[in-house]
Amino acid sequence: MVFWTEEQLRSIDRMLNPRSIAVVGASPKGGYGARLLNAVLKCKQRVRIYPVNPNYTEIAGVKSYPGVSELPEAPDLVGIVVPYHRVLDVLQESHRKGAGAAVVISAGFAERGVAARLELQHKVGAFARASGLRMAGPNCLGLANVKDDIWATASSRTLGGLTGPIGLVCQSGATAFGPFLLRAVDAGIGLSYIVSTGNETDLDFADFARYLLDDPDTRVIAGFVEGFKDVKKFLAVAEMALERAKPIVLIKIGRSESGARAAQSHTAALTGADALYDAVFEQYGVIRVQDYDDLLETAQLLAHQRAPKKPGVAVVSHSGGISSLTADMCGLAGLQLPPLSDQAREGINSIVKEFGWAANPADVTGFSRSDSFPQIMQHMIDEPEVGTLVVASAGAGNQVDQVIELRDRSDKNVAYFWTASRGDQGALAKLKGANVPIFYTPAKLAAGLRSLLDYHARREQRVAAGPTRAPVPTPEQQQMIERLRALGRTALSESESKQVLAAWGVGGTRELLAKSAQAAVEAAKRLGYPVALKVDSPDIAHKSEAGAVRLGLTSAQEVSKAYEEILASALRHAPTAAISGVLVQEMVAAAVEVIVGVSYDPQLGPMLLFGSGGVLVEVYDDVTHRHCPITRAEALEMVAAVKGSKLLRGFRGKPAADIEALADTLVRVSHLAVHLDGMLAELDINPLMVLPAGRGVKAADALIVGSDRANRLYSLNS
Amino acid sequence: MVFWTEEQLRSIDRMLNPRSIAVVGASPKGGYGARLLNAVLKCKQRVRIYPVNPNYTEIAGVKSYPGVSELPEAPDLVGIVVPYHRVLDVLQESHRKGAGAAVVISAGFAERGVAARLELQHKVGAFARASGLRMAGPNCLGLANVKDDIWATASSRTLGGLTGPIGLVCQSGATAFGPFLLRAVDAGIGLSYIVSTGNETDLDFADFARYLLDDPDTRVIAGFVEGFKDVKKFLAVAEMALERAKPIVLIKIGRSESGARAAQSHTAALTGADALYDAVFEQYGVIRVQDYDDLLETAQLLAHQRAPKKPGVAVVSHSGGISSLTADMCGLAGLQLPPLSDQAREGINSIVKEFGWAANPADVTGFSRSDSFPQIMQHMIDEPEVGTLVVASAGAGNQVDQVIELRDRSDKNVAYFWTASRGDQGALAKLKGANVPIFYTPAKLAAGLRSLLDYHARREQRVAAGPTRAPVPTPEQQQMIERLRALGRTALSESESKQVLAAWGVGGTRELLAKSAQAAVEAAKRLGYPVALKVDSPDIAHKSEAGAVRLGLTSAQEVSKAYEEILASALRHAPTAAISGVLVQEMVAAAVEVIVGVSYDPQLGPMLLFGSGGVLVEVYDDVTHRHCPITRAEALEMVAAVKGSKLLRGFRGKPAADIEALADTLVRVSHLAVHLDGMLAELDINPLMVLPAGRGVKAADALIVGSDRANRLYSLNS
Repeated sequence: MVFWTEEQLRSIDRMLNPRSIAVVGASPKGGYGARLLNAVLKCKQRVRIYPVNPNYTEIAGVKSYPGVSELPEAPDLVGIVVPYHRVLDVLQESHRKGAGAAVVISAGFAERGVAARLELQHKVGAFARASGLRMAGPNCLGLANVKDDIWATASSRTLGGLTGPIGLVCQSGATAFGPFLLRAVDAGIGLSYIVSTGNETDLDFADFARYLLDDPDTRVIAGFVEGFKDVKKFLAVAEMALERAKPIVLIKIGRSESGARAAQSHTAALTGADALYDAVFEQYGVIRVQDYDDLLETAQLLAHQRAPKKPGVAVVSHSGGISSLTADMCGLAGLQLPPLSDQAREGINSIVKEFGWAANPADVTGFSRSDSFPQIMQHMIDEPEVGTLVVASAGAGNQVDQVIELRDRSDKNVAYFWTASRGDQGALAKLKGANVPIFYTPAKLAAGLRSLLDYHARREQRVAAGPTRAPVPTPEQQQMIERLRALGRTALSESESKQVLAAWGVGGTRELLAKSAQAAVEAAKRLGYPVALKVDSPDIAHKSEAGAVRLGLTSAQEVSKAYEEILASALRHAPTAAISGVLVQEMVAAAVEVIVGVSYDPQLGPMLLFGSGGVLVEVYDDVTHRHCPITRAEALEMVAAVKGSKLLRGFRGKPAADIEALADTLVRVSHLAVHLDGMLAELDINPLMVLPAGRGVKAADALIVGSDRANRLYSLNS
Repeated sequence: MVFWTEEQLRSIDRMLNPRSIAVVGASPKGGYGARLLNAVLKCKQRVRIYPVNPNYTEIAGVKSYPGVSELPEAPDLVGIVVPYHRVLDVLQESHRKGAGAAVVISAGFAERGVAARLELQHKVGAFARASGLRMAGPNCLGLANVKDDIWATASSRTLGGLTGPIGLVCQSGATAFGPFLLRAVDAGIGLSYIVSTGNETDLDFADFARYLLDDPDTRVIAGFVEGFKDVKKFLAVAEMALERAKPIVLIKIGRSESGARAAQSHTAALTGADALYDAVFEQYGVIRVQDYDDLLETAQLLAHQRAPKKPGVAVVSHSGGISSLTADMCGLAGLQLPPLSDQAREGINSIVKEFGWAANPADVTGFSRSDSFPQIMQHMIDEPEVGTLVVASAGAGNQVDQVIELRDRSDKNVAYFWTASRGDQGALAKLKGANVPIFYTPAKLAAGLRSLLDYHARREQRVAAGPTRAPVPTPEQQQMIERLRALGRTALSESESKQVLAAWGVGGTRELLAKSAQAAVEAAKRLGYPVALKVDSPDIAHKSEAGAVRLGLTSAQEVSKAYEEILASALRHAPTAAISGVLVQEMVAAAVEVIVGVSYDPQLGPMLLFGSGGVLVEVYDDVTHRHCPITRAEALEMVAAVKGSKLLRGFRGKPAADIEALADTLVRVSHLAVHLDGMLAELDINPLMVLPAGRGVKAADALIVGSDRANRLYSLNS
């Protein structure tokens, strides 16, 4: 699917790097019209500025024009601050003039919660797309090209000259030009661009992220998103970002229902189940954070630190209490603090003598502000298992010069946990100016370092695996797809479901469909006792509840009796059910029960579920999710992610289960999920029996529910 | 147990509120001796200051004395900065002089990791306790009476005049007078006292906390603890603090092994299993936080906000993006945001018209800086389900005056999530000055509000339940205690273990001990089929692994065969085991299996465990802990805390289990744990069968392991 055209990217380029800007609705004082004009006028020496307002011939000392048509040139960017009902006219006029792009600050569209306004917004967006005059907004606060100091925004704030390799894209304008901008100034963190996308009727977060991937001055994309307009597009840009090693750091609303409700009332963006988003973000290397400071500090870390050479972290401080707390939070985040080698310990001890602790974490007391501190740091960062040195201190003496010097010299990473006042204007300002990654609490430091490690590990894994695409369906699979397409029901019986699975290489228990008690007995004899009997009907999804399952039958007599009972019970339970017969199945012993499932999220599409199987899945909720398709490495990750996998690794003296076959099955089911996207609603293999290593897996039960679209008439068994 | 004497509290009182201070080891320049003297000299107009150093007759313009003996009076506080080997002499001399207390800043004791220095430290502590001249330290940075502006510390920093109702006690001096002090100044949060306790050879965290409980100027106790010297003493002070409604907010190292290791190398304090600490803190209403900012902001919230009238939170902001994020984080922390009533919605809509969202969270755009904002806030805070109003904004216009005014007027709580620069000197400074609780990130805001709610809920529950004490043992229990004391083994057989449980009112499965196959068959007949058979031996703790369990036997023939097999298998497994026979037990059907256990933490003492029972406990780790004894309310909390309790509440159409009887059992086992403290090492009831409501519980298996101290000779069965 083509999400971005060259023309679109050119339009965004003119929007973000304008040589000329028109402000339609400019006014001399008050309101957004004046604020946008004032903001753009700050760069009037470098960018041609055209106020547009028929009521004035001059505003703020600059010639004003009655309309866009009258401008002396086609402006790269048209800033629109007219009342909502005039926006479309202005866009049309700008298009006729040949303008490059527009940013629509005017509000009064979908956010009003009125159908007519939503419709008008759709019209505006459709015009932008059709005409090629692409736009940000409406209901945004504008944008800033920070690196060239061009502020096309209705906010009066700026970054005060701070530039840096982080591109910020926010749906909420008040968030972009409020907390983010102010906290970035506090933290001394520079940005390349700031874009507020507002209601996103045309360009959305993913479009701007896509543009920033091409921008050589942007190394990290930071975002604040209440909901994605088009998740597939977001995933496409996330995948490209991972390939190009430009991390995306994101706040995504929807952690709780309270937030999701607020997001809906604000941008009308739909939010999906949050755990699924977490899974997808993890899979695509998107780093999810929780607040403004997190976003900025983590983005700064990712922008200014390479992939750590080793996962180990070393911590050095002037205080034992501070080093303990730092180490504690690092440990809690799963970071390793390798013990010091004898060499390093002796080296440090020869400096600090008995006044400190040469360990990891180290407490080097006053030596942290001595001329010997570089040697101490060198001993720690030279440790073979250490990839990152954390200095947890307050910048006394010329410590921060020493730290900056080490950072410049070393090919390992250096980060600073600043323990003194956030308002420090001396040492702290120096650290900020040198773009040393700084954290102000140990938990955020640890989370940041964890993100950096995880990001690069994920990236390596994905790059090694190559693009994750489902293969083209085999002829057998294609045939099954056709059969399903022709099927007149949304539900499949167990045996039908297993036929579908078989086409994707997922085997089931050995079983025979019996249409009489006698046939059942014969089937049991062929399969070998003990056997299970279950009703086979597309109309009875929950067979146990219908009293239509018997397990562990050991004789012809039992089988015969079970056959009759099952039929009677099934018909009592569902008198009109279409029953194709009774399945006679082998009983699988010595296997571990797991669940494998597929669901289709309205936003995210096909999602694979894996977890502890059987009835307990509802109690312990011990499951993990991935977006389909998955790689084999991801399959193994899924297996490792659930607690119940202890049972697979050989529990209490039992043999280890066939995890390799399980991983293959997860990959295959993820391909099935992609191939049947649009036709399936749900797929449940519960339990999938994982046999001892080398003996494979068997679907003991399976349930497939088709989507309502697959709407025709005959059975797979016919 | 008496942890505190009047004499001790008087000594601490003289230490923290001195009218006269001697500085032994004072020096004119350089080092701690000069720094401590300089710090105390700042209050020389109000406190008599005596430098002590035989090498000077005057230091910093103040007369210096050759020794403490020569001072013109007995000083309330002696600050000691002499070399480590002279500390004991100085303490002895000070005691002879009649000094009130000492703070030993000198280092060189246990923190050196050398046995001789640890021993010296013990001597110093023992002298302090014996003489009544109580001391803080050694290896601390001193203390500050902030409210009276007396700084007896070797740090040159102060709070710049900020006082408030938070007493801070830290083991790490560099933490107390470093990050905490600096961040308190940043946040405008005042303190009453700052105490650094260092190596705590005499007075420890709990002692100073105990003193602060009596101090009318301290409403919250904030602490930074690497390990507790005496957990029982800490729990005693925590219990008193809860009674007196003075919250304890704590950073406790030990979240991870990395941190714990660092803590050991620093203070030699032992740390227990962290999950147990979490359980105990929760039980005693101790609020555990993770960093300096958390500690200060949460303490400030607790000091300046009463118990919320209702748990509901309302959020109002100038921005939809900010209100969404705030609501999201509140929801994630489990806080409720009640939807607005029609009345409130209409009231707000009549003000904001279509320029905003009247909802919870509310986005009231520019009306947040208008004269109508008080009305908007009033609508929200007046909602019957709302106990706390959160303003998430940047203080534009005279918003903060309006917020302060509402806070002063309302009997509900008001908190502020500050979204602008932390360095703001206008509106933010005003909020700080008014002691409005301020948070700078939405997650910390939510965690703070959650702590406040949880604290008061816990306090109410504990106050309603009265003091949690195990009752005096009944005569039957006393008899059992005697029998156990006389027992010559550390392990008990299943039937012995069940006899112990029975004495505390915990019934087991109906069962009979058989010493022959014939007796087993008769027993089975009496109990009714089906039955289980298990070997009964104190020497075989894991009966299944020994092949010595048979379940679901349905005939005399099966029982007879099982008897022989079990004995043979048990003897093969443990040829020298003392076997008292084979237990014939009823099979309990239709019950939910749970685990109830007791362990004795070396620091925390008796801990009760509850969780999902059977083999799965090792897989899902679905357990919760409490310190013994527990109240009935706590028992019900434990039941609610584990996922597996879904099975108890009636799962998939099954009847609800007897949760009342389970709660009684948990309370009884917690009493048993207290009564047998010192004699028991472990107790496991796994599974405890919870029958349908009204039918009680039955211990189906039980294992008691005594501590090595119970070391005599005969069996409970004899």
